[in-house]
Amino acid sequence: MNRALNSVLRIVLVFGLMLSMNLKAQSDAATLKTIYETSLTNGMSYRWLDYLTNTIGGRLSGSTNAELAVQYTKRELEKLGLDKVWLQPVMVPKWVRGEKEMGYFETKGELNKVNICALGGSIATPEGGLKAKVIEVKTYKELVNLGEENIKGKIVFINRSWAQELVNTFQAYGGCAAERYKGASVAAKYGAVGTIVRSLSSRQDDYPHTGSMSYGELPLEERIPSAAISTNDAVKLSEALKIDKDLEFYLKMSCQQFDDVLSYNVIGEITGNTFPNEYIVVGGHLDSWDLGDGAHDDGAGVVQSMDVLRLLKESGIRPKRSIRVVLFMNEENGLRGGRKYAEVAKEKGERHVFALESDAGGFTPRGFSFHCSDLMFSKIEAWEPLFKPYLIHYFEKGGSGADIGPLKNDDIVLAGLRPDSQRYFDHHHAANDTFEYVNKRELELGAATMTSLVFLIDKYGIETITDEKEIKD
Amino acid sequence: MNRALNSVLRIVLVFGLMLSMNLKAQSDAATLKTIYETSLTNGMSYRWLDYLTNTIGGRLSGSTNAELAVQYTKRELEKLGLDKVWLQPVMVPKWVRGEKEMGYFETKGELNKVNICALGGSIATPEGGLKAKVIEVKTYKELVNLGEENIKGKIVFINRSWAQELVNTFQAYGGCAAERYKGASVAAKYGAVGTIVRSLSSRQDDYPHTGSMSYGELPLEERIPSAAISTNDAVKLSEALKIDKDLEFYLKMSCQQFDDVLSYNVIGEITGNTFPNEYIVVGGHLDSWDLGDGAHDDGAGVVQSMDVLRLLKESGIRPKRSIRVVLFMNEENGLRGGRKYAEVAKEKGERHVFALESDAGGFTPRGFSFHCSDLMFSKIEAWEPLFKPYLIHYFEKGGSGADIGPLKNDDIVLAGLRPDSQRYFDHHHAANDTFEYVNKRELELGAATMTSLVFLIDKYGIETITDEKEIKD
Repeated sequence: MNRALNSVLRIVLVFGLMLSMNLKAQSDAATLKTIYETSLTNGMSYRWLDYLTNTIGGRLSGSTNAELAVQYTKRELEKLGLDKVWLQPVMVPKWVRGEKEMGYFETKGELNKVNICALGGSIATPEGGLKAKVIEVKTYKELVNLGEENIKGKIVFINRSWAQELVNTFQAYGGCAAERYKGASVAAKYGAVGTIVRSLSSRQDDYPHTGSMSYGELPLEERIPSAAISTNDAVKLSEALKIDKDLEFYLKMSCQQFDDVLSYNVIGEITGNTFPNEYIVVGGHLDSWDLGDGAHDDGAGVVQSMDVLRLLKESGIRPKRSIRVVLFMNEENGLRGGRKYAEVAKEKGERHVFALESDAGGFTPRGFSFHCSDLMFSKIEAWEPLFKPYLIHYFEKGGSGADIGPLKNDDIVLAGLRPDSQRYFDHHHAANDTFEYVNKRELELGAATMTSLVFLIDKYGIETITDEKEIKD
Repeated sequence: MNRALNSVLRIVLVFGLMLSMNLKAQSDAATLKTIYETSLTNGMSYRWLDYLTNTIGGRLSGSTNAELAVQYTKRELEKLGLDKVWLQPVMVPKWVRGEKEMGYFETKGELNKVNICALGGSIATPEGGLKAKVIEVKTYKELVNLGEENIKGKIVFINRSWAQELVNTFQAYGGCAAERYKGASVAAKYGAVGTIVRSLSSRQDDYPHTGSMSYGELPLEERIPSAAISTNDAVKLSEALKIDKDLEFYLKMSCQQFDDVLSYNVIGEITGNTFPNEYIVVGGHLDSWDLGDGAHDDGAGVVQSMDVLRLLKESGIRPKRSIRVVLFMNEENGLRGGRKYAEVAKEKGERHVFALESDAGGFTPRGFSFHCSDLMFSKIEAWEPLFKPYLIHYFEKGGSGADIGPLKNDDIVLAGLRPDSQRYFDHHHAANDTFEYVNKRELELGAATMTSLVFLIDKYGIETITDEKEIKD
């Protein structure tokens, strides 16, 4: 071929390619605009959340409310005209708080009431409560090193303060999770009669924050009651101990662990029109702690995930792949729903290519965290500019979500929505995790952001974001 | 010189330059880390805001509270060990709301109370109130086109809805500002007896949102009362008008405009140790509307600006240039403080190189908007990566702040802090703009973000960010 003609053809080809890429980008930009506008003007997430929180309320696994939430979300998904909606049975633990807990400390004849709550999974105190001297430690490590001679017969007060200097509050939370989760089992081994853990909260206030704890392998008869104390009362107790190290603390809790009960993951699906056997999952967890109404943790993730499927439909998108919303049961104290879903998917040989979880509150979305190979990530990262008009700028490698974790393998991309984290731990697992603290627009922006990513993943498929191994095949 | 030696020398030079740039960047990164950590663990902004809002309260220009705020902030600045603290006198308008407003509409004998408030600057109704039929328009433009025949003798109800589809809520606010500001003057010309304006709010609720309005050149005797109605009640009234276009609306307001009174801008300064005659200003406005306690608008900006000077000191930074905090009086209904400050600066020939305002609420900071030349902007934009660890990603050209606007000239960079905007107009100018809706960490992150930018501008100076004209000199 003539060399000049060859050059011209190459230029035309390159130009055509650039044009088509540009058109493609334009059309993706237009689709994202439709998705965001639909969520902000005609979203359902806030209305669903209103019902889930204000009409139903807190949804601890095994409770009546949890079952009401299963029935309600199934009903609402059925109204959306999806291709399938079903319940996936799963056995879940049933722990019940019982009567409101009581706690106070007595120093120099004065009685100081404190705001406490049982940690999830704790045993009760004796019926009349228990009273003992208190030994304060600042960290789990300090507790481990303290040994029996300092602890025996006492209540261990684990007073680890929140690392306010960390911008990402989840990092600060992670930093003191061991104190809550494992503190009681260690203290019990050293002969303690109970533990009181400073609430894992970014705020100084009067709310005690519950959360799961574990006795590990500790036999039933060696277990001790474990409670959370509000941050304000943790400060007061610590101050009081400086003046009177012999003060006595009274604690009364009547929580109870029952046998496992039957519950469900709620699942809805739009079946893909091109690759129906490739699955994309979007989800949150339906259960919540019992003190508040579980609006941020994780009512927000539930209703946003439901709205992803609805927003795809409302925006006129027909997915190539099968898109599932999965409302997981029992994230808070067992992760049974997440494990069950992955187990069944494996049994059925379902190929999951992408899973996205929203479980960090219904706050203004900032982006996503991706758990996948570097190559997969670099492909996804290229979409970031499409999100710029919506002030979504955070695309980073990192964790995803607890419920989708069990789906992990080399071929799947796991992702977590990353909303602004500043307020999350003001409410997390406390009585003030309630609907009024969720902003409608922030919630809806999150739903739109999730929908947009699901749209792109579905449109361009796993083949463009697959890992090195597969590309060589 | 030997050519090989020359090459080696050049490599060494380039390498040295790269190393020094890298060290400089490292040291800037370390300084920003110190600033952020100091604000989050040892900030004063939240404590100051508590006093300003809960102890003092709403601070409308000319009110006792506004004067208390002047004295309080002056006192607090004096405690910081700045080089100078002073009050700058300025005459401000004094408008007083009077008794709580009353409004209802009567349809088919039924009386429907509505939540209303006078717009700032409005005249009162006659002492017994006024009652008239209602004509609804959707926009200012529709009002302008309606003409006298449809309006005369009626109350004009300007029911412009909020553009929920816009991600930036300030854009939506700007879209309906004419309705509130100019509606009454046009309606009055057409013979209306009053106007009721749907609250400029992103939320459906019962709060009426006040804000300034103007009669323009309209003579006193032709002015008509103008009120805001809550978004919920705007919907109700609009629905009722569809059924009964002859319904009557009752409105009673007793607001009053007094003669101008003396007030003050509050100013504090750290005098620069190298270029004391170059000024950097950071500020917010001390006045607020009277319905809430002015926590977000603009108590947040006031305390953040105060903390900028304190955080510089706490972080061991000795500024080269003179850094001033200016707490402007009367942004809400006159801008007299902003104008006065610029006027005095001009008289004294003070060279201002940079001014930063925080007046968009105490929410999580997302970045800055810059009003300056493209060249200046490109230099500033190069600092954006330093802010990445703090999730600050928004560096854009655009507006800055009302109070610093009068300082504009070719040699100054004006900037506005840009916090997350989703919740701002839920509270703006309403009774729920209160302290409890400000999150401590979000506020402190804003103060740190402002301090960091001021630090960089001061360190590298205007010479590196000056405009083309000056570079040629």
